[in-house]
Amino acid sequence: MKKWRRSARLVDMTRLLIQEPHKLIPLGTFAERYGTAKSSISEDLDIIHEVLEAQGAGALETVSGAAGGVRFIPRMSRAQTEGVLRDLCGRLADPDRILPGGYLYLSDLLGDPALIREIGRIFATLFAEERIDAVVTVETKGIPLAYATATHLGTSVAIVRRDSRVTEGSVVTINAVSGSSRRIRTFSLARRSLKEGSRVLIVDDFMKAGGTVRGMVDLLAEFRAEVAGVCVMVESPARERLVDDYFSLAKVDEIDVKSRTIAVSFGNLFAKGVGFQ
Amino acid sequence: MKKWRRSARLVDMTRLLIQEPHKLIPLGTFAERYGTAKSSISEDLDIIHEVLEAQGAGALETVSGAAGGVRFIPRMSRAQTEGVLRDLCGRLADPDRILPGGYLYLSDLLGDPALIREIGRIFATLFAEERIDAVVTVETKGIPLAYATATHLGTSVAIVRRDSRVTEGSVVTINAVSGSSRRIRTFSLARRSLKEGSRVLIVDDFMKAGGTVRGMVDLLAEFRAEVAGVCVMVESPARERLVDDYFSLAKVDEIDVKSRTIAVSFGNLFAKGVGFQ
Repeated sequence: MKKWRRSARLVDMTRLLIQEPHKLIPLGTFAERYGTAKSSISEDLDIIHEVLEAQGAGALETVSGAAGGVRFIPRMSRAQTEGVLRDLCGRLADPDRILPGGYLYLSDLLGDPALIREIGRIFATLFAEERIDAVVTVETKGIPLAYATATHLGTSVAIVRRDSRVTEGSVVTINAVSGSSRRIRTFSLARRSLKEGSRVLIVDDFMKAGGTVRGMVDLLAEFRAEVAGVCVMVESPARERLVDDYFSLAKVDEIDVKSRTIAVSFGNLFAKGVGFQ
Repeated sequence: MKKWRRSARLVDMTRLLIQEPHKLIPLGTFAERYGTAKSSISEDLDIIHEVLEAQGAGALETVSGAAGGVRFIPRMSRAQTEGVLRDLCGRLADPDRILPGGYLYLSDLLGDPALIREIGRIFATLFAEERIDAVVTVETKGIPLAYATATHLGTSVAIVRRDSRVTEGSVVTINAVSGSSRRIRTFSLARRSLKEGSRVLIVDDFMKAGGTVRGMVDLLAEFRAEVAGVCVMVESPARERLVDDYFSLAKVDEIDVKSRTIAVSFGNLFAKGVGFQ
């Protein structure tokens, strides 16, 4: 086997670790791959860890023992997070976003994988220290955010559906009253998509009164799941809020259809202040 | 500004390039970040490029000129792709997947971000040499695959919906007859979610007769979009196929409900054979 130079090893190890967050890679796998002693691999990992930490990009976590190895825990620094939030708020304030009826067009933001990836990384940073078994969202718009978050947490995704499908097998269904429009809505989750007793993180794109999140929380109770937290991209003011404890990245305070202006500010992320360096 | 050592630079540059596929980073940005001459940066990039190419993980592409820079084009090697396909086929053959009525439960696979990411990388490898402006899918199950593919292609995502929503603004809607059940189904796409004349890649989780893909193709014609290709995770035999040209990763040949067996084989990916080293 060809012996690798340190420079080449550093590039390859960084790539392998970063491409699969939370995946445990045994030191022996690296030693074999590069034809190098484990002591050299450890030195390489120290270099990688130092750079990641210094840049606020995450950390390498070493697990010792026979089933041990090293894994990458992604994070986003406070400075970088502020940059993402400023960009998001700037884009949200674009008056072309106003739709008839005072609704906001968000599909361009949700259709931008680079933005979604960064938001997922922010949500994952908030819960990096906690055990999360699954990220849960409701179809359709929350799905990309849920995957981006789950990728950075190394967990699976379970998608709550508005109707039950024949391709989902046995499902649990509840009916809930929506927060703003007082309509009855159905929430379904396939039995096998979530283990009983899971600790879950709820992710969604938009929250007003919180009826959708509340519906998910009630449905998750049927799975004896513990809700570790709720993360939304955008919140908007509501007379009565059905969910008290949540993180939001941006807040759309007012949409003035006549003057075509949107008042946007940062969400409660930094005010709640957990998990940022 | 602190001058970085080459080892630290290599780790940081690899991270920045790999985390945002297709994003063009000017050499000056690196030179400034590391307090280093552009010539050293070029040497670093050569090392990174060599390692990526040797591992079949992609390449660095340099764009010269004032608006130039370097970007990461991800790929997956044929050997790695075979590994992903073997894993996928193995998981598909699990008899616990059989649902009443002979349907297949796929949500566990679609809920696994690591698998989805790898599949997105395979789809992106097939179209790495082509201009793709957007990845298009239909809600709900194709969404994660579309995002994973778009991430690796550096494009946006447009999601076709089964009903039109007030939060999407002006939409284009068509009605189409489904391939297998001969029911009429509606396909809608927000006007602003796709520029006229875009070159798009269609991605979906499952294809039988191809009625869903056909519906998307017909809808996309209304946007004067050019369909560059169709990629599905799983195909299953159909008496009559409404789509001729597509890539599939796996093929479910037969589901025997009585003996509880599923016959699975590789899809047509390697038979069509484009883009793999």
